[in-house]
Amino acid sequence: MSELQAIREQIRSGKYSGPTSGLAPGYVQANVVILPAQYAQDFTTFCLRNPQPCPLLAVSDVGNPKLPTLGDIDIRSDVSAYRIFEDGQETAVATDITDLWQDDFVAFALGCSFSFEEALMEAGLPIRHYDTGKPNPVYISNVATHPAGPFSGPMVVSMRPYSVKDTIRAIQITSRFPHTHGAPIHFGDPHAIGIDNLSEPDFDASPVPIYDGEVPVFWACGITPQMAIQQAKIPFSITHKPACMLITEIRNSELSTF
Amino acid sequence: MSELQAIREQIRSGKYSGPTSGLAPGYVQANVVILPAQYAQDFTTFCLRNPQPCPLLAVSDVGNPKLPTLGDIDIRSDVSAYRIFEDGQETAVATDITDLWQDDFVAFALGCSFSFEEALMEAGLPIRHYDTGKPNPVYISNVATHPAGPFSGPMVVSMRPYSVKDTIRAIQITSRFPHTHGAPIHFGDPHAIGIDNLSEPDFDASPVPIYDGEVPVFWACGITPQMAIQQAKIPFSITHKPACMLITEIRNSELSTF
Repeated sequence: MSELQAIREQIRSGKYSGPTSGLAPGYVQANVVILPAQYAQDFTTFCLRNPQPCPLLAVSDVGNPKLPTLGDIDIRSDVSAYRIFEDGQETAVATDITDLWQDDFVAFALGCSFSFEEALMEAGLPIRHYDTGKPNPVYISNVATHPAGPFSGPMVVSMRPYSVKDTIRAIQITSRFPHTHGAPIHFGDPHAIGIDNLSEPDFDASPVPIYDGEVPVFWACGITPQMAIQQAKIPFSITHKPACMLITEIRNSELSTF
Repeated sequence: MSELQAIREQIRSGKYSGPTSGLAPGYVQANVVILPAQYAQDFTTFCLRNPQPCPLLAVSDVGNPKLPTLGDIDIRSDVSAYRIFEDGQETAVATDITDLWQDDFVAFALGCSFSFEEALMEAGLPIRHYDTGKPNPVYISNVATHPAGPFSGPMVVSMRPYSVKDTIRAIQITSRFPHTHGAPIHFGDPHAIGIDNLSEPDFDASPVPIYDGEVPVFWACGITPQMAIQQAKIPFSITHKPACMLITEIRNSELSTF
């Protein structure tokens, strides 16, 4: 059994329900959104209008929990932890949603920054939050997404600090990965995108230190659709829990556009 | 006669001896260095070790003033204004160097920022110094070049101010043009690269205003080898005069790597 299969088995069986950063190196991990079919077209449009926070990797057929283009995946069990939303409010967290699956559900997989973090590391650029062992610090910005149907709301961003030189390099590297958030949306002054305090990330994330001469660099984050679901007050929907991603069978290197 | 041929004829005949920015739109313009053959290998190595300030586009055969890969060019007459250096000091400016040409001369053409400025403009990014009608502000930084033989010295940089959003875009666009200086080498604090006062550019250039929320962005500049020639105290050498470039017959779009 490959390492990838072993990890999936642990997640599928519910034995592992934690963050997935660093698991199955080299393989694409994905943000997940599951919605009733009546919202699927609007949500797809929302993703297409907001490709940086919501880069579509795969969409299931209605009622079908498989995502064959991403591997042997059952979206009902293969995410380590899920958030359950009712009327846009989180009502529960689960490690398996087989009992909650509906015949009208459509599952969406969206690219995740883990893919470009691997490319940054390979280029010798450090990932500060790896030093802390905590998930990446993420923040709710005041940058508005482009609405579609009931979906709207602020863009969530992740932050990584870099020297100026490494910031230029990081912009080059992540520009090669438009399917996993692409280039940063901002660097420098956090207030310019409505972030008052970098030491207080949202979604229970931990802050990271920023050293002299470093610039905070902000990328669009795949938690953004979870804000849109809250704004839309969708009666019933499911997402991954932040940092607990879907591990796919496609390689990060396959997503590089050049 | 094409516009390009008409401009070259004006320059070749000495009727035009001014800056070349904006002339022959779409065509690559180049920095020029002419040296005795005994310095050619070291200078080539200097260029290869410093590809951002000194991106080699073409090298002539020894004693041959033609650069056929760049077009029907005679390097003795086809630059609008030249600087003559003796022992590393500028001793004259000329509009034609036919009388000064030596059998042991080697001519080098290096990429110029005009190529990527065209790409920036096409992407809707303004070029501030176009508003002033003056050449681009350039500065002698404290970033050291990698020495080769007698050649060394500080990197000269050009500066263009952009919003943060446009800075990210400008990094993407200029990264496609490694043969014309490529990505910026720095943005933000000028002091970090030894520039004390942005309002006082070097080489008789004019400053440009930087507005609220804008970031000064610095690219390596093809005047850098002129500093290296001064440092090396080469007995006799010739360069273009800053802003008075060699106009070639190759298209800027041909230099985009993707």
